[in-house]
Amino acid sequence: MDFSSDNRMGVNPEILEALHAANKGPAGAYGHDDMTRSLDQVVGDFFGTKVSAFPIISGTAANCLPIAASTPPYGGIACSEGAHILRAECGAPEFFTNGSKMLPVAAQSGKMTADALAALLAAYPASNTDTTVPAVLSLTQVTERGTVYTLDEIAALTRLAHERGMTVHMDGARFANALVTLGCTPADMSWRAGVDVLSLGTSKNGTICGEVVVFFNPDRAENFRRYVKRAGHMMAKQRFVSAQVVAHLANDLWRHNARNANAVARRLHDGLARQEQVTILHKVEANIMFVALPAACVQALRAQGFAFHTVGQDAVGQPVVRFVTSFLTTEGDVDHLLAAISKACA
Amino acid sequence: MDFSSDNRMGVNPEILEALHAANKGPAGAYGHDDMTRSLDQVVGDFFGTKVSAFPIISGTAANCLPIAASTPPYGGIACSEGAHILRAECGAPEFFTNGSKMLPVAAQSGKMTADALAALLAAYPASNTDTTVPAVLSLTQVTERGTVYTLDEIAALTRLAHERGMTVHMDGARFANALVTLGCTPADMSWRAGVDVLSLGTSKNGTICGEVVVFFNPDRAENFRRYVKRAGHMMAKQRFVSAQVVAHLANDLWRHNARNANAVARRLHDGLARQEQVTILHKVEANIMFVALPAACVQALRAQGFAFHTVGQDAVGQPVVRFVTSFLTTEGDVDHLLAAISKACA
Amino acid sequence: MDFSSDNRMGVNPEILEALHAANKGPAGAYGHDDMTRSLDQVVGDFFGTKVSAFPIISGTAANCLPIAASTPPYGGIACSEGAHILRAECGAPEFFTNGSKMLPVAAQSGKMTADALAALLAAYPASNTDTTVPAVLSLTQVTERGTVYTLDEIAALTRLAHERGMTVHMDGARFANALVTLGCTPADMSWRAGVDVLSLGTSKNGTICGEVVVFFNPDRAENFRRYVKRAGHMMAKQRFVSAQVVAHLANDLWRHNARNANAVARRLHDGLARQEQVTILHKVEANIMFVALPAACVQALRAQGFAFHTVGQDAVGQPVVRFVTSFLTTEGDVDHLLAAISKACA
Amino acid sequence: MDFSSDNRMGVNPEILEALHAANKGPAGAYGHDDMTRSLDQVVGDFFGTKVSAFPIISGTAANCLPIAASTPPYGGIACSEGAHILRAECGAPEFFTNGSKMLPVAAQSGKMTADALAALLAAYPASNTDTTVPAVLSLTQVTERGTVYTLDEIAALTRLAHERGMTVHMDGARFANALVTLGCTPADMSWRAGVDVLSLGTSKNGTICGEVVVFFNPDRAENFRRYVKRAGHMMAKQRFVSAQVVAHLANDLWRHNARNANAVARRLHDGLARQEQVTILHKVEANIMFVALPAACVQALRAQGFAFHTVGQDAVGQPVVRFVTSFLTTEGDVDHLLAAISKACA
Repeated sequence: MDFSSDNRMGVNPEILEALHAANKGPAGAYGHDDMTRSLDQVVGDFFGTKVSAFPIISGTAANCLPIAASTPPYGGIACSEGAHILRAECGAPEFFTNGSKMLPVAAQSGKMTADALAALLAAYPASNTDTTVPAVLSLTQVTERGTVYTLDEIAALTRLAHERGMTVHMDGARFANALVTLGCTPADMSWRAGVDVLSLGTSKNGTICGEVVVFFNPDRAENFRRYVKRAGHMMAKQRFVSAQVVAHLANDLWRHNARNANAVARRLHDGLARQEQVTILHKVEANIMFVALPAACVQALRAQGFAFHTVGQDAVGQPVVRFVTSFLTTEGDVDHLLAAISKACA
Repeated sequence: MDFSSDNRMGVNPEILEALHAANKGPAGAYGHDDMTRSLDQVVGDFFGTKVSAFPIISGTAANCLPIAASTPPYGGIACSEGAHILRAECGAPEFFTNGSKMLPVAAQSGKMTADALAALLAAYPASNTDTTVPAVLSLTQVTERGTVYTLDEIAALTRLAHERGMTVHMDGARFANALVTLGCTPADMSWRAGVDVLSLGTSKNGTICGEVVVFFNPDRAENFRRYVKRAGHMMAKQRFVSAQVVAHLANDLWRHNARNANAVARRLHDGLARQEQVTILHKVEANIMFVALPAACVQALRAQGFAFHTVGQDAVGQPVVRFVTSFLTTEGDVDHLLAAISKACA
Repeated sequence: MDFSSDNRMGVNPEILEALHAANKGPAGAYGHDDMTRSLDQVVGDFFGTKVSAFPIISGTAANCLPIAASTPPYGGIACSEGAHILRAECGAPEFFTNGSKMLPVAAQSGKMTADALAALLAAYPASNTDTTVPAVLSLTQVTERGTVYTLDEIAALTRLAHERGMTVHMDGARFANALVTLGCTPADMSWRAGVDVLSLGTSKNGTICGEVVVFFNPDRAENFRRYVKRAGHMMAKQRFVSAQVVAHLANDLWRHNARNANAVARRLHDGLARQEQVTILHKVEANIMFVALPAACVQALRAQGFAFHTVGQDAVGQPVVRFVTSFLTTEGDVDHLLAAISKACA
Repeated sequence: MDFSSDNRMGVNPEILEALHAANKGPAGAYGHDDMTRSLDQVVGDFFGTKVSAFPIISGTAANCLPIAASTPPYGGIACSEGAHILRAECGAPEFFTNGSKMLPVAAQSGKMTADALAALLAAYPASNTDTTVPAVLSLTQVTERGTVYTLDEIAALTRLAHERGMTVHMDGARFANALVTLGCTPADMSWRAGVDVLSLGTSKNGTICGEVVVFFNPDRAENFRRYVKRAGHMMAKQRFVSAQVVAHLANDLWRHNARNANAVARRLHDGLARQEQVTILHKVEANIMFVALPAACVQALRAQGFAFHTVGQDAVGQPVVRFVTSFLTTEGDVDHLLAAISKACA
């Protein structure tokens, strides 16, 4: 039973059906096919505004390509000190930008505060002609700690960024999960809150590989294809990626998937909250949670074949583990895990 | 009827079946799944030697990642003056290497000669401590002009490169087509001829996206995953790419596909050779050909819906077009095109 | 009266005389002159070991060039969270390395602790094949806060770095000042303590522009000229830089200069320590000090023409200023400043 | 006697005097000194227009920094196939631009023709959204073959470049020599002919290191200091570079020097033209010439201590040597060389 990551799951049958349907005769390569051409409309409808949308096969690239297209070489990329792009990508942002500067911002439970961002920006004053220019603000929604920024929190951060002329990027690897949590529209949680470009993830939520880079101001996408091309992300048979995106957004498949992941996460959270020896470390607001458990309990769970990541230790030396639920996780899976924890911690 | 590129075709049904079969339960992400782990063995069997094999979703990346891993920042990449990586990738090699130098080598009908390579290398003598160090030789097999290097030609070039300590890379976007032409083994046309790392293409030959980077000396692959990761090419659900590769190599599907493409190309060539107003520009040795036609004929063909690229003009101002056949092109398609040309040129 | 930086001072007359002496007839360009060729010997004698030495015209480049030559693209550069290369160079390390990752290490009064370095390294375990590889440890001696690492402290850090196969770089912009403080030999504070490559500064200590990159293992310098060349730091008439270095090291000019700077800094420190309204923020161990003063006092000093940097505020909101002394600062200058402070704070 | 390069010569006494004069008390670092601040005016007066001028210590950097500031990552840099920046800089343009693409243009005797440039640009049509965007045209004046573009030739090239929105850069390592040849004003040969940014060389013409990057549209220089800073070319004591530039431009020192170099080159040319066994390969229009000589003659000259570069062979296998004269070369030196050739070839 696997609680290690939503990206280890398989895919919805609808996705494979969409690939079959896309395999009809020749079609323009490198995005010049009807399916890919429809993305601006399909994704635009989803967001209730005009967009430029590009299908990309990995979250790393879907984040770093628009960041690269939004920063000069001497620019800086502000993000949470625990941001995935900062910590877990082997230097991908530095690579894609050819050496722009990462600017970590202090965060609490995964969320940058407006004060911390303001302090960072003050350290790189616009008046200094010799220093890094903060160029991009990158927010992760759902955050890396499993929390969800409120619309007001997003707006407070994007306002600061825009005052400095920065581009606001959102890493939306789990955008659908956050949407379900907030119960708002895709528009509310993106362009209306000040997001300029979004990496809309779908692969953690049921596709093989169908991330979408969404520019809410299509003018900014003018040379984006060139960044995609030279990074080797312009797949020849792009229709097969675009088809996944279209199928994922059709019939609310995305919402159905995310709702399940969040609901079973809530069930897991509630069960864990009743366990005395278990400490939940951050608010659980989507489908990820960080939990401190006795070492013996962790061992017992592993011995029974439960899969999950250990991510460190808490202040008193207990292992901290991460549980992630997905569109395929069942209530039964959760109850099974809870029972095992209950027994192991007893 | 589409003769513009083999990468505009769909995929073999076996490939989609392989995706279905791969969609069974959770699996390790980022290549830590059984299917991807099997690649070293599967690809090694294909080449009759021990290899390190990595699945990659585009030819651009499958070429540039191993090139980047084989050159220092001050290195140079020797390739034909008409090489795809030099001309058609929006600077991808420069991007992936962070600015290593492209070193174009004079070529005839797409093939570098050993003399031209020797002259290039002489211009960057090892004794000069301030200059670019030729670090990689990149050969394209089938070449960009549709010709095929003989095994002796490959060996002559790789010998020169190895004398200078260079890594030999082969862009094998149409490796299968060349294999069918030469009738040799995969081993003969790669490591036995001096190739150190190969980008083995499959997407032009029937898959969605399943290029394979093959290191014939697995020691050289030590840090390759880091290059893949930071370039955003470490797909989470890699099993779905690896499954395509495995299906493509199983039951000689690759050979079946390439044989068809080459055979119908030969039929097209023979038919064109009988047309008086048609000039075939290079030897046709695989599934690509370059042909000069009267402008009116080109117009007529387009009017009838034939798709193909116009790539320039010949010495007397006639348009030069490129015809590419694929695993899906039929004898009927070819005969249809020949009849249309015959009529239009009459 | 200028206490803002030692790099605002002029140069020793001996340096200008050396330029005159170097202006004799033609000489090999790009370092192929006798003066530059003598550097390995001259600098090697200074350090009591065999070295490869390269003259460079700026500290930025003298730091970043050897760092770039010591890290792969996927490498990381560990340095103090307040390191000059991290904070004050507009992304120079990222530029020179083409996007290697900066890895800030927690520091106290400018000094990394071995514990903090160990924690950082543990976050990038050698067993993880997908993550940044810590490749360089960069220490600044004198630190950016004006403190000086002891030989034991240096050794503890370099030991940790070497256990991970990292290259140890020392930013020695004020190496001479630290040497005078510790009273040890240049060898003790560099290669004997585990430093692999040093950026030996001279321009803050009396030359125009004569930093020296010193490789203590000359084998590591093999391709260094290529890094220098492609970064535009291979000056044609290098003899005029090398001549400055030679003159600076001759007759203990470097020591004479540094002794003065440190001695007057000590005098300034002692005077400040007697002022009630003045708080000295870190140990003053060389020629830099950070001091919290009443805002009115800062204003008064500026009004009287004293030059110095304000670098922030202390916990209670008082301005923090930085005073730097140099080889040209006199006891009279210091007494003048002290008197002004005494009066302004009274 | 040295005819190998003008950059092997020493410097004018006026330059060393200027350094003495600049060594007066403290001055703002990193260009915030009065001497550097005066450069916009001094250089602007020289060119008869408003400019932004930056002192740089090497030609490599003075060329590559403005090129980097003028091209996006996906941009291309068109230059002569024999351009110094393309052939002789160990990949400096690729490094400074982080991997922009070099686009060699066919040239005759060092000069690109408008036709060749037009053909190159046509290969990268603006309509193709996936390909390299030609962003910079770089001209060398005096060319690498010793020829000098006429004002009309420059204008024809810059017109083509501007039609595509490109920035025109001139590598003016020997700008003064070309000015003397054409007898026009600095304005005529730069901004009036369509040059947007010039690397004005002085170090080959009598200074230690005082190249100047000149933006003829100061708006384009907005972020240029950031490029300079992160490349390590923002010297702390910049006043000592700026002082050289000011002294070089004062009292027509530049012209006096260049006139001498050209005049003795003309004398050398005329003498060589009278030698039967000597073939002069290109028009000699400034202070560089390429000459084919019998191998025995070359040997004899070297044996007598004449210094010069051998740069290849002519069509019949004779060695081709390059002779360069300088501001210090005398008529006697030239006559001495001519006599030796006359004797050796007899």
